Amino acid sequence: MERYDLLIKKALLPNGKVKDIAVKSGRFVKIGSDIEAEAGYVINASGKIALPSFANMHTHVPMSLLRGIGADLPLMDWLQKVIWPLEGEFVSPEFVKAGTELGLLEMIKSGTTLFMDMYFYEEEVGKVAKEAGIRAGLGFGILDFPTKVAKTPEEYLKRAREFAESFKGEELVFPVICPHAPYTCSPQTLKKAKELADELGLYLHIHVAETKDEVERIREEYGNTPIRYLSSIDFLSDRVLCAHMVWLDEEEMEIVKERDVKVAHCPESNLKLASGIAPVPEYIRKGIHVCLGTDGSASNDNLDMLEELSTMAKLHKGVSLDAKAIDAVTALKVATQNGFSAVGIRAGRIEEGYEADMILIDPENPHLQPLYDPVAQVVYSAQSSDIDTVICRGKVLMEKRELKTLDEERILYEAKIWGEKIRNFLDRYKG
Amino acid sequence: MERYDLLIKKALLPNGKVKDIAVKSGRFVKIGSDIEAEAGYVINASGKIALPSFANMHTHVPMSLLRGIGADLPLMDWLQKVIWPLEGEFVSPEFVKAGTELGLLEMIKSGTTLFMDMYFYEEEVGKVAKEAGIRAGLGFGILDFPTKVAKTPEEYLKRAREFAESFKGEELVFPVICPHAPYTCSPQTLKKAKELADELGLYLHIHVAETKDEVERIREEYGNTPIRYLSSIDFLSDRVLCAHMVWLDEEEMEIVKERDVKVAHCPESNLKLASGIAPVPEYIRKGIHVCLGTDGSASNDNLDMLEELSTMAKLHKGVSLDAKAIDAVTALKVATQNGFSAVGIRAGRIEEGYEADMILIDPENPHLQPLYDPVAQVVYSAQSSDIDTVICRGKVLMEKRELKTLDEERILYEAKIWGEKIRNFLDRYKG
Repeated sequence: MERYDLLIKKALLPNGKVKDIAVKSGRFVKIGSDIEAEAGYVINASGKIALPSFANMHTHVPMSLLRGIGADLPLMDWLQKVIWPLEGEFVSPEFVKAGTELGLLEMIKSGTTLFMDMYFYEEEVGKVAKEAGIRAGLGFGILDFPTKVAKTPEEYLKRAREFAESFKGEELVFPVICPHAPYTCSPQTLKKAKELADELGLYLHIHVAETKDEVERIREEYGNTPIRYLSSIDFLSDRVLCAHMVWLDEEEMEIVKERDVKVAHCPESNLKLASGIAPVPEYIRKGIHVCLGTDGSASNDNLDMLEELSTMAKLHKGVSLDAKAIDAVTALKVATQNGFSAVGIRAGRIEEGYEADMILIDPENPHLQPLYDPVAQVVYSAQSSDIDTVICRGKVLMEKRELKTLDEERILYEAKIWGEKIRNFLDRYKG
Repeated sequence: MERYDLLIKKALLPNGKVKDIAVKSGRFVKIGSDIEAEAGYVINASGKIALPSFANMHTHVPMSLLRGIGADLPLMDWLQKVIWPLEGEFVSPEFVKAGTELGLLEMIKSGTTLFMDMYFYEEEVGKVAKEAGIRAGLGFGILDFPTKVAKTPEEYLKRAREFAESFKGEELVFPVICPHAPYTCSPQTLKKAKELADELGLYLHIHVAETKDEVERIREEYGNTPIRYLSSIDFLSDRVLCAHMVWLDEEEMEIVKERDVKVAHCPESNLKLASGIAPVPEYIRKGIHVCLGTDGSASNDNLDMLEELSTMAKLHKGVSLDAKAIDAVTALKVATQNGFSAVGIRAGRIEEGYEADMILIDPENPHLQPLYDPVAQVVYSAQSSDIDTVICRGKVLMEKRELKTLDEERILYEAKIWGEKIRNFLDRYKG
């Protein structure tokens, strides 16, 4: 008799069929009716909806400790008047560790099994991610101006290289090169970052065209809009993940399509910071590879991909006056498969041969009944507290909402101590 | 020693202060530190955030049984090809009762204590609302075309009068006159509905300017846009609640302001049905009375006011490129006080003298920690499953997420049986 690592019994699949799902060596190896086999672990999924787990393709997870600070401010005020002074005071390996733990609690509880992160002290993020058993593409942020973590572009690049080299060859955590943005890195820094990524065979992850102001700034400084400018210095390729991408013109969209650049759409952060609304239905129509991210908790204010994908699906219908602009199936694909595949991971579908990343959703709640169309109703009506079980590469990270790899009580306790310190600083800073 | 009906100990108020809240005869009578008194019931709210409960100012609660059906269709297709045939088959007193029970489960679990409803067989809605202990402004929908519930406008008006008279003088449930919309009622029907409301001293509740199509239709038929047309037949007053109001021009906004017409903004339904985005920040700037509603579950797909207010706050910042377009405090007021006061109820604030309608939110969850700004973090990061306790007019409807007035298990069981019948019909209908 075949022996599996994990057997999930009687799950309701997105196609409406009830099936058993067998997992071995981190992959879905058999999906069928009434699989009779030995298994290392069995989950009874009867009555639950099985969906691929989420890929959060743009975030700054340690910022969970700064959740919601500076609400109702536009991006530049929020960054310069609130976030940077706070980061100047607090960012340290200990802060990054505690913030990452808090963020990973939240991400696992809301069904995410891959996140792409850009911050400082990413070694700490990597350690926590490994412990939590979650996939992470991590990069040490590269800037041109001095902060407490580095003084010169060279120093940032050195830190980025050191981080990348120390995390090569891990199973779930992979290094990424993260120049912050065209408006915070010179052309030289961007070129060096790209060379580093090419040399080490890594992806690049960068903020691009987030606000109208940024577009104007880049145009003034380099005589061109951000995507044209990045194209002119040969920065763009199919291994570049560009977050935001709110303000592109038609020709820039063609460049993005042609180079197969990956777009990480962050609708809630873009709304909350009043940055604007990316023309995502147009990107999708043109065949641009769009995935989804929450951005950091300081501008969202959560890391909830289910909320994010629901907002995305509704928002673009309303903006374009087209009820089919992004349908439920497309929204789910953008939030799952399109994320994993953007960084070369064959996950985001519950199909034989795919990596075993999935969630189970409990529809036994008034807001999901009657259940006619599992995918549409999850997209438009579920909340992340309905997620019962989370599996990453065949490993159960949460079951019956109980976390298996992280100590929720300790982490919340420590987050509150950090919160106290930060609150005291804010009181002094405002006063 | 003073004796209270209900005493809530150590709640964190929106202003950041921890206080005790004493309730007598359905009102907040004392808010202070360490109130020592006898009380019929005591709730320990230590560590929980106290906020006013929500007023859902536009919904069709029995449609909970049609949740999510026809996802990704625009309004007119959705109504004519899916919803009306289904309603023709299923709408009955039994359907309305089961749908209302399901909807009220969901509304109470998501912190709502007032809803304004328009549907058929509203006697059934009223009975369930009374049993549940929730405030409800209910109206029998008035149309010009025949359905199974009535054949002529006269017959609808007669049903509306009968319903209104049978529910006058109730404590929590009050009748409302509900002509469906300017495009489904003739000028004669609208005038008669207004006369009926005036005669009985009731509010009017109507759909207005939901889609561009509607505006064009009204212009073609009556030579004027909806608000101008309604103004020309003297329909508008401070006792008229207009749902949607997506497509108004400047002059129409002035009319609405001048007549003190109440606007029930339904952002998620308007997005999902691709109707558009109402210019709500402009309404608020002009001093128009804006409140919030979810619309029915068939077009939202839930009755979750916390999600709705979060969407509203973020959406309008992004659309207007103004991070202060609707701040968190304003969003909360629109979803609470502005709803209650639109129909003359002094609730929506936790202050002495106000009606005791409130919720407690449990922030002991990673997505709400650290807690710096309770109001902003609830608006931008909470989900309705964080709502622990719901109180309506001093009566506890839910505590520790357990419903006190409704039998959740039985209601979900019956909703599933209805779901089965409806699913079978849809299968035949499509096939």
